[in-house]
Amino acid sequence: MGFEENIRRVVPYVPGEQPKDKNLIKLNTNENPYPPSPRTAEAIRQFDPGLNRLYPDPAAGKLIRAIAGRYGLEDSEVFAGVGSDDVLAMCFLTFFNGGKPVLFPDITYSFYDVWAELFRIPYEQVPLDEHFRIRPEDYDRACGGIVIANPNAPTGELLPVEEIERIVGAHPECVVIVDEAYIDFGGESALPLIRKYKNLIVVQTFSKSRNLAGMRIGYAMADASLIRWLNDVKYSFNSYTMSRLAIEAGAACIRDEAYFAECCRRIMETREKSADMLRALGFRLTDSASNFLFATHPDVQAKDIFDYLRGRGIYVRWWDKPRIRNYLRITVGTDREMEVLGEALAEFLRRIATALR
Amino acid sequence: MGFEENIRRVVPYVPGEQPKDKNLIKLNTNENPYPPSPRTAEAIRQFDPGLNRLYPDPAAGKLIRAIAGRYGLEDSEVFAGVGSDDVLAMCFLTFFNGGKPVLFPDITYSFYDVWAELFRIPYEQVPLDEHFRIRPEDYDRACGGIVIANPNAPTGELLPVEEIERIVGAHPECVVIVDEAYIDFGGESALPLIRKYKNLIVVQTFSKSRNLAGMRIGYAMADASLIRWLNDVKYSFNSYTMSRLAIEAGAACIRDEAYFAECCRRIMETREKSADMLRALGFRLTDSASNFLFATHPDVQAKDIFDYLRGRGIYVRWWDKPRIRNYLRITVGTDREMEVLGEALAEFLRRIATALR
Repeated sequence: MGFEENIRRVVPYVPGEQPKDKNLIKLNTNENPYPPSPRTAEAIRQFDPGLNRLYPDPAAGKLIRAIAGRYGLEDSEVFAGVGSDDVLAMCFLTFFNGGKPVLFPDITYSFYDVWAELFRIPYEQVPLDEHFRIRPEDYDRACGGIVIANPNAPTGELLPVEEIERIVGAHPECVVIVDEAYIDFGGESALPLIRKYKNLIVVQTFSKSRNLAGMRIGYAMADASLIRWLNDVKYSFNSYTMSRLAIEAGAACIRDEAYFAECCRRIMETREKSADMLRALGFRLTDSASNFLFATHPDVQAKDIFDYLRGRGIYVRWWDKPRIRNYLRITVGTDREMEVLGEALAEFLRRIATALR
Repeated sequence: MGFEENIRRVVPYVPGEQPKDKNLIKLNTNENPYPPSPRTAEAIRQFDPGLNRLYPDPAAGKLIRAIAGRYGLEDSEVFAGVGSDDVLAMCFLTFFNGGKPVLFPDITYSFYDVWAELFRIPYEQVPLDEHFRIRPEDYDRACGGIVIANPNAPTGELLPVEEIERIVGAHPECVVIVDEAYIDFGGESALPLIRKYKNLIVVQTFSKSRNLAGMRIGYAMADASLIRWLNDVKYSFNSYTMSRLAIEAGAACIRDEAYFAECCRRIMETREKSADMLRALGFRLTDSASNFLFATHPDVQAKDIFDYLRGRGIYVRWWDKPRIRNYLRITVGTDREMEVLGEALAEFLRRIATALR
């Protein structure tokens, strides 16, 4: 018998491509098209690099205080990690240890089933309805936990906060994670509910609306008891997750409320213009409250569009998965990037039409 | 039944204190007393902060190539993580999934049993001999994995690489992790053995000998098949662990071989001087091949010395644990810091002697 028998075999999450060519139009991983707040650049410039010889604050206090201050919370109600993936992985590991299955939609962030498999957590995927919407009543059953991305990915559909409350309130027996990676693009956060429901944890990220995907910062907000359990697991995994630079840049970033609001406003404006443009080209779209659009075309296979755009240096996201095989997820870029996308799509559709004539 | 029943309860690792007062002499968490290579400062300064809007390379290719280049390895033989704690946690999760207990010394890095508890891995702690040394023959039995810190912490004792090979060669049925956090301070690495033994993984860190504790970078080196399994688990946990700045600063750091060698040389020189100084004061020491000393005094309780030093603004490490309760772990600082420590200890011992007269 060899050592291979003791190895944990998993099918990992496959992140979107990160091509290094800067001339590409990159609309495939939902990054913010605008640079981070100038205050983060300033924080990095002001940072004394000699301090890097010392461990960071394991509690990332400065960052935690900045986040708590932004949301009107106590420090004890906030947890930070290396991107919201790290935060969510810690949540799965900490909160989902019962024998009953954890529930999440069949079409949602595709890391949820990967974490469940990794940690051997039983789970069931609850089908979205035919309009790719969550039906809260489908979650009215005994379970070991619930995870809802809101807005959902890759559909962009928003569940009203009353529906979130209905799910959370119906499940005092388990922790409900609401993954709000995209909430700042027009959605209403479930955050106020954490003072009412001790089983609710709200997860957000600096990677989308705060323009800092490269820095790796995510956070969770919940009743102090949930945060304490989460910290116990974090301190059993890695004492020092947040680097000194992440703490400094993150704290500076979250204090620049005006820049944050302006970037979100612009992205929402571009989203609506882009949605109109896509509809004019014959695409059908979900009702996205996020920084991406989820689009299908009745006449053309999504995979063919994906390949064509790629050949023209425009990266969008496509999954070879049931139900969504004929959809593209398109990150909202700058106005100019979306115009170039529109021109490429129009050209492709013209060629198809000519070929079919 | 409430959600609390599904929560993973753990007793977390307690990191050494990170006091923020810069006037303290901080000899408690084995940081390097010298600032990072000027090239890391330059890499941070040169970094375009606008790039932080984009995710980093999930494979951290630039950092991996720099590490592989330094050690004469293929990129496929190197894994990087958020400090060696992250790397070791991933190794425990990936490699120790059998039913048999994992073995490590009773006195060693106190995170090993925390990870085993976190991931529900059965383990047995193998007692060091009366001189705090590992007896390789104690590991001659069936097990699910072996973890050896070499040099060991907090004893500093080095196991010759032939003894490491004996353990690795005797256990083709399990993965052997050699945690070489302190190897650069005079030890011989087991790294050359990874081409001979597919069950060996060697873990190192940028936090000690590479002066970058604040940046959070650790790495593992092993046969490409072990690294692949480890990456599968990493990609099932968090796709993007290494920030853009960590990749840049880490790659710059490891290329500055001369600075690295000079810092290590100085620390070893100070270690030997400091060991002589402590012996002259009546302390007994283990034979440390690391950047710390492990010391006990026949006439005074370690806890009393610890408290006294703390009162004078000198932080060292003390554990209230069996066998080592009367020892202090003292990080090797600068020559000047060690002189101040020596003066404080001499003063304390004088007072004790006076009080006893």
